[in-house]
Amino acid sequence: MRTTTGWEYVPSDNPTNGNSSTALRRGTFQRRDLREDDLAVRIDYCGVCHSDLHMVNGMLKQLGTALVPGHEFTGTVTEVGPAVTGFAVGDQVAVGTLVDSCGQCTMCRAGQENYCAQGPVVTYGGTDRVDGSLTQGGYSREYVLREKFAYRLPAGLDAAGAAPLMCAGVTMWEPLRAAGIGPGSQVAVAGLGGLGHLGVKLSAALGAQVTVLSRTPAKADDAARLGATGLLVTTDEEQLKGARGRFDLVLDSIPGPHELSPLLHLLGLDGTLAVVGYPRPAQVNLFDLVAGRRKLTSSGTGGRTGTADMLAFCAEHAITAEVQVLPSARVNEALQRLAKGDVRYRFVLDLADLDDLDAPAH
Amino acid sequence: MRTTTGWEYVPSDNPTNGNSSTALRRGTFQRRDLREDDLAVRIDYCGVCHSDLHMVNGMLKQLGTALVPGHEFTGTVTEVGPAVTGFAVGDQVAVGTLVDSCGQCTMCRAGQENYCAQGPVVTYGGTDRVDGSLTQGGYSREYVLREKFAYRLPAGLDAAGAAPLMCAGVTMWEPLRAAGIGPGSQVAVAGLGGLGHLGVKLSAALGAQVTVLSRTPAKADDAARLGATGLLVTTDEEQLKGARGRFDLVLDSIPGPHELSPLLHLLGLDGTLAVVGYPRPAQVNLFDLVAGRRKLTSSGTGGRTGTADMLAFCAEHAITAEVQVLPSARVNEALQRLAKGDVRYRFVLDLADLDDLDAPAH
Repeated sequence: MRTTTGWEYVPSDNPTNGNSSTALRRGTFQRRDLREDDLAVRIDYCGVCHSDLHMVNGMLKQLGTALVPGHEFTGTVTEVGPAVTGFAVGDQVAVGTLVDSCGQCTMCRAGQENYCAQGPVVTYGGTDRVDGSLTQGGYSREYVLREKFAYRLPAGLDAAGAAPLMCAGVTMWEPLRAAGIGPGSQVAVAGLGGLGHLGVKLSAALGAQVTVLSRTPAKADDAARLGATGLLVTTDEEQLKGARGRFDLVLDSIPGPHELSPLLHLLGLDGTLAVVGYPRPAQVNLFDLVAGRRKLTSSGTGGRTGTADMLAFCAEHAITAEVQVLPSARVNEALQRLAKGDVRYRFVLDLADLDDLDAPAH
Repeated sequence: MRTTTGWEYVPSDNPTNGNSSTALRRGTFQRRDLREDDLAVRIDYCGVCHSDLHMVNGMLKQLGTALVPGHEFTGTVTEVGPAVTGFAVGDQVAVGTLVDSCGQCTMCRAGQENYCAQGPVVTYGGTDRVDGSLTQGGYSREYVLREKFAYRLPAGLDAAGAAPLMCAGVTMWEPLRAAGIGPGSQVAVAGLGGLGHLGVKLSAALGAQVTVLSRTPAKADDAARLGATGLLVTTDEEQLKGARGRFDLVLDSIPGPHELSPLLHLLGLDGTLAVVGYPRPAQVNLFDLVAGRRKLTSSGTGGRTGTADMLAFCAEHAITAEVQVLPSARVNEALQRLAKGDVRYRFVLDLADLDDLDAPAH
C-alpha cells in the first residue's frame, strides 16, 4: 500500500447534534498498490464542488469512517502499471467524478459510464470494484486509478483552472449537447456560481446567445465579461414577462430550493429546463410542460465520451474555470465561504502544501 | 344568427354542493352567421374526451352560463363563406380542439397554434377573437368556424373512428414526433384508454416496439391486437426491475394522480416521459432525471401542422380510434361510464338524433 496525506472528514470530529461548522482535518491514509492498468497521480489542484459541501454537511455525518472529499482534480502521473498504454510518467492529467464502471452495460458501451447499470465507482465515497474498499477523493496529494478514467490535460489549459472542468464543466456540457445548442440558440443561465459561470462560457463558445438570470443587476458586468449578451433580473416581473418563450435551454444551477414555473415559462417551443444545481424532490406543475412541449431534465456529470469531448472543446476555445486558488490547508475556509456564496467562481485547492506539513500521528 | 341544438351543461341544473352526477341537457343555442372565411359544418360524430369530463365535473361548475362541450368531431360542410377556398359544400371535415389563433406570433408561424402567445381560441369555452362570444362545442348538430382550423377528413377513414384523432390522436402524436420515434425505438404506453390505445397504434405504425404498462395482465390480448409486442405488469417489481432503462419514450396517459418515479426509471439514455393524461401539479424527484439524462414533458394537443401530419399518417396506415358509438341522447351515460373507465376505448356521440328530437322550449 502507498501512504498519502489529505483533508478528511472524521465523524467523531463532527457531532450530528447541531449545525456546528464541519471541519476537515489533515490525515494520512492508504492508496492501493498499482494494478496492471493503474496510474499513480500526484494531485496538484482539486476544485471545491458544491456537492462536497452537501456531502460534508449531509450524508457524511452518517458515515462511520473518515472520508476525503474531492472529485475534480488535475495532476501529474508519477507511476504507471505495466499494462498502461496511454500515459507515461510526467504526463499532466485530469480526473473527474468517476474512477471505474462495469464497462459492459448499455450505458458504459455508449460512453455514458456515469449511468453505469451497476453504478459507476465515484471518486470519493464509492466502492472499488476489485477490493471493495472505500474510495478517497482528491483533497489529497496522490490518487491511484485505472488509466481509462484519466484524461490527458490539454496543452495550454491552466492546471488550476482546468480542475473544475472535470465536474462543473461536464455537468454544464452534457445538457448543452443534449439540447443541440449551437449558433443561433438562446440559452439562459440561472445562478452564476461554479456551475453557472462555466455554463455561460461554454454556451457562448458554442455560438449561442447567452442571458444570465439573476435576482439583481449587480452581476451584469461579470456576465458580460464571461460572454453573456444580457442579464435578466428575475425579480422584475416586466422583464420576466418580456422574456416568456425566448429560450431553447435554461441551465438552472441555483444551489437550493426554488420555484421552477418562472423558469419553465421562459422556454420556447421544445425548450428544455435543465435543473443541475439542486436535483432534489420538487413540486412541478406538469401543466407548465404542456404549453410549448417543454422539457424538464437534469445532468449527472458525464461519461468518458462527453468528458473527452468537453476537454477538447475547452482546449480549442481556451476555456477554464475562473478560480480562486488556496493552499489546501485553507480547505475549511473554502467550504465555509462556498456555503455563503462568497467565491468567484470556484475555489481550487493547491495540494503542494501537503508536502511541507508534518504528517500528524493518527 | 343560426339556431342549432346541442347537449349543454347548465349551471343551475348542477348545484356545487355535492358530487351529484352532472347531467347535460338538450338545448337550443345560436351559432354566428358565416364570416367571409367561415364554414358551417353539420356535426356527425363527436368524441367524448376525458377533458370534457374534467370540465363538466370541475371548472364548469364555476361558470355562470350554459356550455356545450366537445372538441373532437367530424362532419359535413353545409355552407361556405365567400372567401373560403379550401372546402366546398358536401366535403367531409374533421375539427379538433382549436378554432382560431392570432396567426402572427412565433408559435402560430411555426404551425403550433396550440401554443399561440395570445392564447388559441379553444373549441368550447373559448372566446371568439372577433365578437368576444363564448365558443360552444361539438356535442351539437352544427359548428361554424374559420376554414383554417378545419381539416379534410382523409378518404377511407371512418368518420366516427376518426373523430377522436382530433384530440386524443394528436395528443399522442406530438410527443411521439418530438421524441423522434421510429423503427427500432422502444415505446411504453401507460394507461390503455382513449389516449393510450391511440398511442399504441401510432407508435406501432411508426415502426417502434410498443409495450403496454398495466396493473394487471388482463389487457394483454387487447394490447397485442392494437399492435403492442408486450405487456408489462407494473405491480410486479421483478418485471419493473427487468425493464429499467429500456424505453426511449413512456407515454403516460393515466388519467389521475400517480407516482412518476417508477415510470422515469424505465427510461434509457436521453429517454422521455410524456405525461399527457394528468398534467397537474406533481411531486417530481429531480434526481430521477439526473441518471440517464432523462426528460419529463407533456403535450398540449397539436397545431395545424402536427394535426395535418397526424391525419395524413393515420390515412396512410388506416388508423382510427376504437370507438363505441352512442346516440347523442345517451351523452350522460357516456360521461358516467367514462368516469368509471367503462369504455373501450372512446365513446363517440352520433349527433343525428338531434334532428329527430323536438327542440325543448328553453
